[in-house]
Amino acid sequence: MPGRFAERVGQAWSASSSLLCVGLDPDPARLPTGVSTYEFCRDIVDATADLVCAFKPQIAYFASHGAEAALERVCEHIRHRAPQVPIILDAKRGDIGSTALHYAHEAFDRYGADAVTVNPYLGTDSVEPFLQRGAVFVLCRTSNPGSGDFQSLMVGDEPLYLHVARRVAMEWAEMGDCGLVVGATYPDELRQVRQAVGDLPLLIPGVGAQGGDIAATVEAGADSTGRGMLINSSRAILYASDGDDWATAARAAALATRDEINAYRRR
Amino acid sequence: MPGRFAERVGQAWSASSSLLCVGLDPDPARLPTGVSTYEFCRDIVDATADLVCAFKPQIAYFASHGAEAALERVCEHIRHRAPQVPIILDAKRGDIGSTALHYAHEAFDRYGADAVTVNPYLGTDSVEPFLQRGAVFVLCRTSNPGSGDFQSLMVGDEPLYLHVARRVAMEWAEMGDCGLVVGATYPDELRQVRQAVGDLPLLIPGVGAQGGDIAATVEAGADSTGRGMLINSSRAILYASDGDDWATAARAAALATRDEINAYRRR
Repeated sequence: MPGRFAERVGQAWSASSSLLCVGLDPDPARLPTGVSTYEFCRDIVDATADLVCAFKPQIAYFASHGAEAALERVCEHIRHRAPQVPIILDAKRGDIGSTALHYAHEAFDRYGADAVTVNPYLGTDSVEPFLQRGAVFVLCRTSNPGSGDFQSLMVGDEPLYLHVARRVAMEWAEMGDCGLVVGATYPDELRQVRQAVGDLPLLIPGVGAQGGDIAATVEAGADSTGRGMLINSSRAILYASDGDDWATAARAAALATRDEINAYRRR
Repeated sequence: MPGRFAERVGQAWSASSSLLCVGLDPDPARLPTGVSTYEFCRDIVDATADLVCAFKPQIAYFASHGAEAALERVCEHIRHRAPQVPIILDAKRGDIGSTALHYAHEAFDRYGADAVTVNPYLGTDSVEPFLQRGAVFVLCRTSNPGSGDFQSLMVGDEPLYLHVARRVAMEWAEMGDCGLVVGATYPDELRQVRQAVGDLPLLIPGVGAQGGDIAATVEAGADSTGRGMLINSSRAILYASDGDDWATAARAAALATRDEINAYRRR
């Protein structure tokens, strides 16, 4: 039975005809001249809200320069401007239960996120406080070059990331709304994870600047309904143009990415 | 050859005759009436600075209620009041390299931390940006009840946490200043990690409120010089009294914990 978040994502997929998630990574060094962190994100949201199934603000890009208040305003803007679009706070939290409670408060109360990315390394009690409040996407096989260092270590006859996938699907998803993070840069691993977890939603970073292939991603990651994916692109959309037309260029890039994803969907 | 941080910790161990690290976890629900988050941490620092080898602010307790500015001031206060005491930002970061750069900027530039706790799950390139700027303590075998869910999975004939320990000792410590996080709640595992990593510094949470045994911790975790540990206590010191004497009670609790640790040291 899908939880509240899964239902919300399903509605967002339908309303936008889109599996695209736009990541909000406002790098201070790349913002257009004279445009604040908040204004940049606000205009990206306005330019792409009808083309996405989720927005994913990456908290590091705010925390690095003390712009938490801007992140609060961005989330508030999304809720007002695009209430149908869920907010995934990309924070990759992972701590002991008593601390995780405070991180859950941060994600769901302070920022009003619908879901938060979490790291599985600390185990079940590190994730429970989040599941009591909202949805989580658990890191499984990440998109970066070093992701195999530990995630691909063989535990018995399967790599660690598949153990993570199975525990999330079999145990944590019984406790609340769960998805997994699997990078588009590893389509074979993405296929294995999809086979292991049924129709759980997968948050898939790594297309665009990181080079993941959209055709291979859609083929490997789709669930039994041809959806089941939130395919994230950040830099390739945010910085599609470094001229004054950055917002319209971002819209064009989002539209092209959405349509490319849809072209490879079976239904 | 010890790095700059290891040297700093060595000096702090000597200057304070203490292996105690005080964790700054200012829970809004437990602060004394009328005392702000900043004032509480400041007074704890002033009451305990000569008794500790490090302070470890836990960022979740600030981020949950938008108190990042208080954390900035707390770190600044430590640098001025107790410049000999290193600051370990407990943030358990772990993200792809381009994002880790921003988290490193947050920890080392914004907060002026000397070290930051990091999660190993994303692999080498997620830790490199931190090592280029300061020290890291890598989560290895954490203190919480669910820590064994993945950390104790057998990879070949050894649990995952020992693979993490060995990679940190053999590879990451060559790239920069590294330590490991191992909970006092698992002294057998602590002993295994110590045997695997030589004299790398170990940050050891879990005594005090979490119930870890100090005698067993010191016996299992000491390095070849009888030191090598930063034994963290947070709640048992911060909330030693809920009356007006909270600061003097914190000092008394820190003193007792420091002395108990020292009573079990061989030299």
